[in-house]
Amino acid sequence: MLEKLKEEVYKANLDLVKYGLVVLTWGNASGIDRESGLVVIKPSGVSYDKMKAQDMVVVDYTGKVIEGKLRPSSDTATHLELYLAHPGIGGIVHTHSTFSTAFAQSGRQILPYGTTHADYFHGAIPCLRALKRAEVESEYEKNSGRVINEAFSGKDIMEIPACLLANHGPFAWGETPGKAAENAAVLEEVAQMAYYTEALDKNAQPAQGYLLDKHYFRKHGKDAYYGQTRPGGKE
Amino acid sequence: MLEKLKEEVYKANLDLVKYGLVVLTWGNASGIDRESGLVVIKPSGVSYDKMKAQDMVVVDYTGKVIEGKLRPSSDTATHLELYLAHPGIGGIVHTHSTFSTAFAQSGRQILPYGTTHADYFHGAIPCLRALKRAEVESEYEKNSGRVINEAFSGKDIMEIPACLLANHGPFAWGETPGKAAENAAVLEEVAQMAYYTEALDKNAQPAQGYLLDKHYFRKHGKDAYYGQTRPGGKE
Amino acid sequence: MLEKLKEEVYKANLDLVKYGLVVLTWGNASGIDRESGLVVIKPSGVSYDKMKAQDMVVVDYTGKVIEGKLRPSSDTATHLELYLAHPGIGGIVHTHSTFSTAFAQSGRQILPYGTTHADYFHGAIPCLRALKRAEVESEYEKNSGRVINEAFSGKDIMEIPACLLANHGPFAWGETPGKAAENAAVLEEVAQMAYYTEALDKNAQPAQGYLLDKHYFRKHGKDAYYGQTRPGGKE
Amino acid sequence: MLEKLKEEVYKANLDLVKYGLVVLTWGNASGIDRESGLVVIKPSGVSYDKMKAQDMVVVDYTGKVIEGKLRPSSDTATHLELYLAHPGIGGIVHTHSTFSTAFAQSGRQILPYGTTHADYFHGAIPCLRALKRAEVESEYEKNSGRVINEAFSGKDIMEIPACLLANHGPFAWGETPGKAAENAAVLEEVAQMAYYTEALDKNAQPAQGYLLDKHYFRKHGKDAYYGQTRPGGKE
Repeated sequence: MLEKLKEEVYKANLDLVKYGLVVLTWGNASGIDRESGLVVIKPSGVSYDKMKAQDMVVVDYTGKVIEGKLRPSSDTATHLELYLAHPGIGGIVHTHSTFSTAFAQSGRQILPYGTTHADYFHGAIPCLRALKRAEVESEYEKNSGRVINEAFSGKDIMEIPACLLANHGPFAWGETPGKAAENAAVLEEVAQMAYYTEALDKNAQPAQGYLLDKHYFRKHGKDAYYGQTRPGGKE
Repeated sequence: MLEKLKEEVYKANLDLVKYGLVVLTWGNASGIDRESGLVVIKPSGVSYDKMKAQDMVVVDYTGKVIEGKLRPSSDTATHLELYLAHPGIGGIVHTHSTFSTAFAQSGRQILPYGTTHADYFHGAIPCLRALKRAEVESEYEKNSGRVINEAFSGKDIMEIPACLLANHGPFAWGETPGKAAENAAVLEEVAQMAYYTEALDKNAQPAQGYLLDKHYFRKHGKDAYYGQTRPGGKE
Repeated sequence: MLEKLKEEVYKANLDLVKYGLVVLTWGNASGIDRESGLVVIKPSGVSYDKMKAQDMVVVDYTGKVIEGKLRPSSDTATHLELYLAHPGIGGIVHTHSTFSTAFAQSGRQILPYGTTHADYFHGAIPCLRALKRAEVESEYEKNSGRVINEAFSGKDIMEIPACLLANHGPFAWGETPGKAAENAAVLEEVAQMAYYTEALDKNAQPAQGYLLDKHYFRKHGKDAYYGQTRPGGKE
Repeated sequence: MLEKLKEEVYKANLDLVKYGLVVLTWGNASGIDRESGLVVIKPSGVSYDKMKAQDMVVVDYTGKVIEGKLRPSSDTATHLELYLAHPGIGGIVHTHSTFSTAFAQSGRQILPYGTTHADYFHGAIPCLRALKRAEVESEYEKNSGRVINEAFSGKDIMEIPACLLANHGPFAWGETPGKAAENAAVLEEVAQMAYYTEALDKNAQPAQGYLLDKHYFRKHGKDAYYGQTRPGGKE
């Protein structure tokens, strides 16, 4: 079942390797079939070079395995929490990519210092509040998802398709699993640039709002004119 | 038409990947045929590994597509502005390479700390003034080119074949598309070295002018003696 | 003899190259056959791309060569000291990987800033005391092992499977040679993240103990639920 | 003539690429035939992937081309100056590798913070005095060699087989061209580690002299015991 989505999710997992975002068995990518509500996700702790598309695990919205011989990613509950709250999300990835994780470990958001950031993210990439002891000791992964949803409450989560879990690392999402992996790659690049920008200037300031808006809307929304689709069309 | 130039521009675009200056579909390279005044440029938002030489788009000096099925790079107007103002430029590239962009994001020029810099650039690589709101909101790409031309007004733009757009990233140029890509690669290397130099010494000073001149003129101008051509010849 | 272990040790040595932890002939990996007490180790100063599984050297617990035409690693005595003191260790690796060595050279431990660290190490990765002149001038390699054992005295060495030799570099270990190489790779990644975390925040603090414990025990011990084995089983 | 040496020098030049020390046509490696006094060196400004062993240029001690269709490296006179003054040198390389050049650009020596350094260099790697205007404007390359010789006057140049030309970059040497390239690779690695060590600890101190000596003499001189040769033999 869901063979096409399995292929997509499999490919998005391999993209994490290709983009240099994961080592060993770290990280995971998933995708959702909005019609059936079923989620396809990487199996837990399996190495990327041995994994096949058929190894992807199908789970329902409670995390119950519907198809697959392997156990799903231990972070499955976090993914589900996001899918349930945000109908616009079609794919989610989690990595421990180096610079994004360093920001997460220092508890700092990534400010929009330039157009590279603004081409993909409409505002700062937030570093979320730390989970409390009780939130960690019971339903840890589900609570990680809740903390993300809490942070984006009242906002359009598709406009800033990534966040940092404090002392942990990034989650990124998108309309498809592939787009989620792409956003995770851009996040890491943007984190690296922000790191060097701050090192060059301790008082570095975000770019002007009108420049950031220009770049964001050059690629998103009805007046977009980047890429090969008609203005107002989808990219 | 212009098949040879398309090949050159295509190759220069792939050079950006080879030199590690771009990820995803970022960046673009172009070249000009000075006889016809036509410019060949990368199509917008197309991935480097799917792109073919035939996909390169031919535009005239107003940006009108003369040949090609795809839309030209969204930065086309910036390229055109440079070609129109500087007859010596034969190729232009734009990237978001990491260290150059970090300098651009911190609004700082790249000082000539050593001979690596001086072998290619005859002076500091400037970070330009930020565009004003009106310059961004209307004719943004064209105005980006105008700000570059403004900065090099009264100077020989071929002596410092790169600059940083504030809060954005680098543009580089050269006598050919390949040379422009090469200059972009050197810019990134020089930016990286400058970053580490300043980290090692907060009060780092540019190298002596006579050393910088020696290296610049060892490779450029009528007394050049680097490479395989006769002194005074072209390299 | 011990052909299977030789293969494992050979592969762990190549893992050091694959993980980017060694250059030239630096570094070494070994494994022990607990039944016979014999240790298989990389030959000294042999390049990784010429080395074969059959080149691995078999030594006894005194360091005497039992089989093999080549001389064993000059660090053999350090490995033996660790195997003798800790029956849980099945493999050991030594590298001069960049960030781990930088911490070793600055005499600083690596603090647990996040879950990447806690997934593999149950606490800070210690930088050991410098060896005294007499310890260096006589039985240097054996004394290096003794200083490691001294530091882990009264602790479960398998819970923090790596350490830094002051002004030298890291040793890592595990249940198998492959696991030791994996731990060395994670150590380097964790060292790099810690470096950037401290650069972003000079007053960076370790993550909350309950978060670190959660991640460590999600992957280790009887209640582990990461990977493809039953809870309480081995990964 | 000198076909074997040409092969060696060619291979050493390619090693610079393999070790990640050069980009574009930067850098050069040479070797000397001590019997004839002839030097084989990379041609100037030729790209590494097009270069063949037969392209290596043979020059005599005055720099006169004895064999070869191409012009020798523009740095030839620096190489010759070193060969003439130090009969122990069999090969020389010059690169603009990133971290070594950053130290050169900040005018700082590389202190021996650990055993990685001491395995190859018996003391700090010096950053030399800047050349004076007259030294740059006339016989620049020869004077670069003279400044190196001046710095090592009264010392055994083989014990510290590299140095940094101020605001320029590193030169490294060895008994053979291959050894010189290897030393250049170690220099860059050691420079990188020193950079991170100083960033972690602004007051970082060199390692204890007895530890540095131990490592240096473990690999060099009559009591060496690293590698596959008999103690006292050559490695």
